[in-house]
Amino acid sequence: MSDITYPHSAEDALQLDASDPLAERRKLFKLPDGVTYLVGHSLGPTSKTALERVTACTEEEWGEGLVRSWNSAGWIDLGSAVGARIAPLIGVDPADVVVCDSVSVNLFKLAVAALGHVRTRTISIEDDTFPTDQYIADGAARATGALLRRVPGGGAIAALSEGGVLIKSAVNYRSGLVADIATVEREARARGAMVVWDLSHAVGVIPLKLQEEGALLAAGCTYKYVNGGPGAPAFVYAHRSISVEMRSPIQGWLGHAAPFTFDGDYQPADGVVRFVAGTPGILSMSALDGALAAFDGVDLNDCASKARSLGELCLMRGEAAGLIPASPPPHARGGHVSLRHAEGYAIVQALAAQGVLADFRTPDTIRFGLSPLYLSYADVWRAMDVLEAIMAERTWDRPEFKTRAKVT
Amino acid sequence: MSDITYPHSAEDALQLDASDPLAERRKLFKLPDGVTYLVGHSLGPTSKTALERVTACTEEEWGEGLVRSWNSAGWIDLGSAVGARIAPLIGVDPADVVVCDSVSVNLFKLAVAALGHVRTRTISIEDDTFPTDQYIADGAARATGALLRRVPGGGAIAALSEGGVLIKSAVNYRSGLVADIATVEREARARGAMVVWDLSHAVGVIPLKLQEEGALLAAGCTYKYVNGGPGAPAFVYAHRSISVEMRSPIQGWLGHAAPFTFDGDYQPADGVVRFVAGTPGILSMSALDGALAAFDGVDLNDCASKARSLGELCLMRGEAAGLIPASPPPHARGGHVSLRHAEGYAIVQALAAQGVLADFRTPDTIRFGLSPLYLSYADVWRAMDVLEAIMAERTWDRPEFKTRAKVT
Repeated sequence: MSDITYPHSAEDALQLDASDPLAERRKLFKLPDGVTYLVGHSLGPTSKTALERVTACTEEEWGEGLVRSWNSAGWIDLGSAVGARIAPLIGVDPADVVVCDSVSVNLFKLAVAALGHVRTRTISIEDDTFPTDQYIADGAARATGALLRRVPGGGAIAALSEGGVLIKSAVNYRSGLVADIATVEREARARGAMVVWDLSHAVGVIPLKLQEEGALLAAGCTYKYVNGGPGAPAFVYAHRSISVEMRSPIQGWLGHAAPFTFDGDYQPADGVVRFVAGTPGILSMSALDGALAAFDGVDLNDCASKARSLGELCLMRGEAAGLIPASPPPHARGGHVSLRHAEGYAIVQALAAQGVLADFRTPDTIRFGLSPLYLSYADVWRAMDVLEAIMAERTWDRPEFKTRAKVT
Repeated sequence: MSDITYPHSAEDALQLDASDPLAERRKLFKLPDGVTYLVGHSLGPTSKTALERVTACTEEEWGEGLVRSWNSAGWIDLGSAVGARIAPLIGVDPADVVVCDSVSVNLFKLAVAALGHVRTRTISIEDDTFPTDQYIADGAARATGALLRRVPGGGAIAALSEGGVLIKSAVNYRSGLVADIATVEREARARGAMVVWDLSHAVGVIPLKLQEEGALLAAGCTYKYVNGGPGAPAFVYAHRSISVEMRSPIQGWLGHAAPFTFDGDYQPADGVVRFVAGTPGILSMSALDGALAAFDGVDLNDCASKARSLGELCLMRGEAAGLIPASPPPHARGGHVSLRHAEGYAIVQALAAQGVLADFRTPDTIRFGLSPLYLSYADVWRAMDVLEAIMAERTWDRPEFKTRAKVT
């Protein structure tokens, strides 16, 4: 039983669409005909503003402005400007966010920098965290001589007793489980530990209130629900109370207080900008800047409740079709849901053959991403009709659906 | 006196253009009207192929292909594919180069990884190296507990006696001085040291023969002479004989041997691909991919001799106009030259006001970048006419030319 309204019929879906405060947003996006896109938790689609911004960047700023655009087009401050647009999505001060590098690189910087501010030189991580976070924790520990502690999923609070650094996801990449940021932070504070939050599967789909909940450090991805484009640069959040005392291990010139003095001694920039390293990818960052326009005026509470309602629809109809739900209840999850089936890979391929794009995580998990800005209730209802038919007719049971691609 | 042919008159310039094997290349580039672009050593211009590739990436691959493009458009292997196109520019095996992250981040990875393969845990760097390299050396040393040794410019060979890691530029960012890679590598080998080469100011303008000269590790920039676009991703070169034994400190999922097994244990990918960290910026990398088409069939010896001839023209006419040459002789330098003047900043602004773009490095250095694929001898001759007039008439001596911009 669920405490959330979700459609039980095609008519219900149309009714929910008619009263959806986000319904108009889908006009901002460009999605190919014949596709129901349930993979926005992996790579969001193009928007008109993102495409326009890329064209302006390539043809005007780069093409006409050339190197002058570092000043005239504000490239030099673009990471901070785009960071400031991300800040309201995560509930922090706009001056405490900067866009640069990838999530992996940013988690590395934050974890190593945080080692200087904790009681013991330990980096902990739960073993159900997205793999790159686990690898980064391992590499950061090896490089710095810190101790790595991999703990079972759900073991975060226990791990904090070490008094070291914990890398933790705000939303689990597989189940969608939302972490209790405030509780984890309170425990961390009490034990001399620090938490580096990975917001990748949370930002842009559920409201985050990092500052209110006491979170000091985070990194996150912008190509999922934020729709910034393939490999769009990530962001770093570091609260001013701690950032001004931190030292990034990757001391690049654009994190220097005065990069154009060409001084041989490193003086970190004020605040979070010190976590910038080298020259950022301006084309990719411009796409992200444009994509963020789709969030102007959006209430993330509306996003979360719509995504959770659509997720409930997937879980309920997926279960009825023979899949095993593998996500927590609506209030405890983010914008995607997972269902399991031994033939999950083939089922995802069979869905794709009918224009319903979902993704698969080995060994048996099908993920549906319910990005609320461009999906309607009717879209997802029809997608579940397709799933139902595929399961009833065993359409997935064909050799062509079982050949694994390089990227699954 | 110079051992190189360079124009002594406008007629000479036209004659040299008439026999220039690279003359046709400028048709591939899009440069704004009224601009002579002598800043290709900082940010190269747009090319038709780069712009086309960005459009294809945004509208078709991202827009229509969406997440499927990781397979269908080969995004997952794009870093290796573009790396293979860079390999001939630096004289190495195509399988030993991968495109990812920024130069700063890549120097960090290589320097820390190399610490595991040297006699003493020391990172050395000359104090006239581009600042980000010095900051990275410092940060890498701090993070790993290694010793940082900053030595005077020209002190690289002496620093190798430490038997540690040396970060060194193939071409000095200020003077243009070319390093003797073979000699430095021979000395390093003899003393249990390793060299991480920064190829940023060399790649795409002079022929590099890293493998022949015994170089094992390098990173480099692609937005200068390679024209990959603002903040285009950098590359890593690691020779197979050593890469297979190295461990990047930034262990991201796309440097894993099998990222889609979602295994919690990190198994590095074969060879240089292990230096990839997080998801690369596909838009920026696509621009770079397109830009590299301008090098198809180019002989880098032609690039180097043309750039050096154009540089000699700048040095000779600049000196005649009252500036102080600050670059080595033609055979010993890369594609840019420097001249000094106490009013260098104002002179660069006065040049820009007449469409001649050069750049300035504090406190007094004017740099002219002689990118040979789109500059003609006549272009640079006329630019030096403008310089001559500015110096003769003291046009630079106006308040508006002395107000410093944020990026100089």
